[in-house]
Amino acid sequence: MPGVYLIGAGPGAADLITVRGARILEQADVIFYDALIDMSMLAWCTSTKLVPVGKRCGAHSSSQRFINKQLVDAASKNLVVARLKGGDPLIFGRAQEEIDALEQAGVHYEIVPGITTALAASAQLKQPPTTRDLSRTLTLTTLPGRCAHPDHKTAIYYMARDQLTEVASTLLAQGYSGDTPVCLMESVSLPSERSFACTLDELHFGDVHHHFLDRQPVVVMVGEVYRKQLQLLRPLIQPQFDFEVLQAAS
Amino acid sequence: MPGVYLIGAGPGAADLITVRGARILEQADVIFYDALIDMSMLAWCTSTKLVPVGKRCGAHSSSQRFINKQLVDAASKNLVVARLKGGDPLIFGRAQEEIDALEQAGVHYEIVPGITTALAASAQLKQPPTTRDLSRTLTLTTLPGRCAHPDHKTAIYYMARDQLTEVASTLLAQGYSGDTPVCLMESVSLPSERSFACTLDELHFGDVHHHFLDRQPVVVMVGEVYRKQLQLLRPLIQPQFDFEVLQAAS
Repeated sequence: MPGVYLIGAGPGAADLITVRGARILEQADVIFYDALIDMSMLAWCTSTKLVPVGKRCGAHSSSQRFINKQLVDAASKNLVVARLKGGDPLIFGRAQEEIDALEQAGVHYEIVPGITTALAASAQLKQPPTTRDLSRTLTLTTLPGRCAHPDHKTAIYYMARDQLTEVASTLLAQGYSGDTPVCLMESVSLPSERSFACTLDELHFGDVHHHFLDRQPVVVMVGEVYRKQLQLLRPLIQPQFDFEVLQAAS
Repeated sequence: MPGVYLIGAGPGAADLITVRGARILEQADVIFYDALIDMSMLAWCTSTKLVPVGKRCGAHSSSQRFINKQLVDAASKNLVVARLKGGDPLIFGRAQEEIDALEQAGVHYEIVPGITTALAASAQLKQPPTTRDLSRTLTLTTLPGRCAHPDHKTAIYYMARDQLTEVASTLLAQGYSGDTPVCLMESVSLPSERSFACTLDELHFGDVHHHFLDRQPVVVMVGEVYRKQLQLLRPLIQPQFDFEVLQAAS
């Protein structure tokens, strides 16, 4: 059916899109895709019209207003228009402005959910963010300052790569223990995925920003449920001992 | 690769499983599926060995321990074993016991995430649970008593059909306004899907449990972001006026 389909691409791996999403990509006349989308995802697209939009596409940044106009213009030509967004379109996906534009223009549109990063990261860790004994609430947020629960349950931060120290200091100020486990995962579900663990104190006092690659999304998971990962994952902060051994060997 | 695949089926509609999940179902030698799974999902399964497990399958209830044993036994025969669970396996999916059993048995296993109900319900409503102006945190929970944020952000309750009054009274006691919007959605993404809206006061004082069908999951979404839905959705509580009109007409 003609109209605009806001489709969640999932976390990155091409086969973590939904079957519905993949089918619409196959049938779409034109596809507008985010810069966050991994290129392997575009293998689903049989359309010859692939339009990159978003801030990371080459040198230019498409303004949101221009994206909105392109979606409405394409839909008004009776085309099947796919708008492919990373993760889930409605979980920190900034879909509201596009939805408003489509509603104002009276365009038929549908939303196809996608695997949001928190779910994919949990699957990769093989660690439920909630367990019956430790936490039965999960909070997803982009705001270091406003996330914590008084009862210290699991919190997952999106887009936090540049606010790691702030995430830690806020949680510590709110009463989280300094030894609360933290997992950090970069490029979830892609071949370049990397994961680390540390304590909240280490996240606070360590100089951790340089551990992560430019322009790759990082998800930060905090809570007692991740205690086992402190042993299983690579430590974010290398113990001083390792540095000394390396120095002695070089 | 032989082993056990814990696969999220998504909210119900067969095409809201991931491509990865659907492919594994096609290749699996044996599939253990939850009672919550919609039967249309099993069209993905080419295996002749389909094993219903879970509390809603006919008259009997498979105990968790027996499910664990079946998974390990099947994997030890070098089979590709799919364990299909509703929603996402790790979001209130009670996967921990199965994970523990597989790890103890040294069985190779992987987790394939699924669209959790909160994401699918948001897509159906066309309403992001977070927006930049109203809420930048989203809490998912099964516990009426421990969900609310001091700053009254969006909360989505799973498995709350039998605790609707408790959800409302707890939030009101924590300072949420009585006119906070609430959306309730039953059988998300299935043909039988139904959605309603009300205020927190109406959820508290109305006798609302009889509105929902037996054995169908209901998700409850609370927060200022849902104000528009008070106009758009069917009211959960019929205004008294309607009753009077109906009475006069009968």
